[in-house]
Amino acid sequence: MSNNIVFHNQYISKKQKSQRNKQKSCILWFTGLSASGKSTIANELEKILFEDGYSTYLLDGDNIRFGLNKDLGFDNKSRVENIRRIGEVAKLLIDAGLICLSAFISPFEEDRDNIRSLVEKDEFVEIFIDTPLDICENRDPKGLYKKARNGEIAFFTGISSPYENPKNPELHIETKSKSVQESALEIKNYLKENGYLNA
Amino acid sequence: MSNNIVFHNQYISKKQKSQRNKQKSCILWFTGLSASGKSTIANELEKILFEDGYSTYLLDGDNIRFGLNKDLGFDNKSRVENIRRIGEVAKLLIDAGLICLSAFISPFEEDRDNIRSLVEKDEFVEIFIDTPLDICENRDPKGLYKKARNGEIAFFTGISSPYENPKNPELHIETKSKSVQESALEIKNYLKENGYLNA
Repeated sequence: MSNNIVFHNQYISKKQKSQRNKQKSCILWFTGLSASGKSTIANELEKILFEDGYSTYLLDGDNIRFGLNKDLGFDNKSRVENIRRIGEVAKLLIDAGLICLSAFISPFEEDRDNIRSLVEKDEFVEIFIDTPLDICENRDPKGLYKKARNGEIAFFTGISSPYENPKNPELHIETKSKSVQESALEIKNYLKENGYLNA
Repeated sequence: MSNNIVFHNQYISKKQKSQRNKQKSCILWFTGLSASGKSTIANELEKILFEDGYSTYLLDGDNIRFGLNKDLGFDNKSRVENIRRIGEVAKLLIDAGLICLSAFISPFEEDRDNIRSLVEKDEFVEIFIDTPLDICENRDPKGLYKKARNGEIAFFTGISSPYENPKNPELHIETKSKSVQESALEIKNYLKENGYLNA
């Protein structure tokens, strides 16, 4: 980074923006296997929060790949850079006073911890969407598991590449015994009880 | 880009988010020489818009360089990638229903036009902060012009690298005869008259 850079103070702070949105801005980091339900639950939660008047934005592995990260492949270096950029964008969204939902497989603890360390202590809410592999593989909405089993996709999480379970996630959602709406409401309750909503 | 990507529909649309913010989300792209007043005017405008109840976010060349784009240098390829990423982030902010202000020298027409083509027709508002070079060089708040004149900085816009004036900017602010507040209010009036505010 050049030494020719000086920080500008922005007049309107994160706190002012968050407060006006009656929330504490943060990133809700959904992690879990492909087809575990991350995006579906995140979408449902966003809908609920929006209807309650909160200001949110949903970052999604699928749509960010078409824009900001379209220059990146799927090799190891790209994977790290992919998550790094998403974390930086999430940080900007927090700074904008929004509750940022993000739904990425993000299988590696190190990558997730890097995002956590990027923001303030209570700004990172890790949500483990825990769906057994056999259920995910049965759903297989995009046929990816089948392709992975056939060797058409290399390094596919759960099949040919590991998924590291979060050790201390803020929320551990076992979807086996819960509907999408129940899962979303469980997260909403956490946010309410921990001062992220009605702030 | 992989074929293994499927677009997810997000439940809450840009339009819904914008409407609730009583605005039409867009990017206000401030361009001009170093020390021309881009950031100062953008900051002032953000303050005014916030006080009027609008939802905004300011992207700034100085602070984005510490985060998302900290891996980039100042060579030609990095410059293009720098602006590309900022454009993609601005697009996400528009999608989040915000008025995004961005203040970057962005000296090349091609780069600015690339951002314009990334978003919808009326989502890009190009604002040329037109301050004569001698005034900018006299201000020189970071001592950059002096360094550039001494050959300590290569490819410095206005000194050793060209600034291409916008040909058809939505707003052309000649700061010579205007205060910061007058400039900011002129932009606000444009936004009001063109349906971006009170929408």
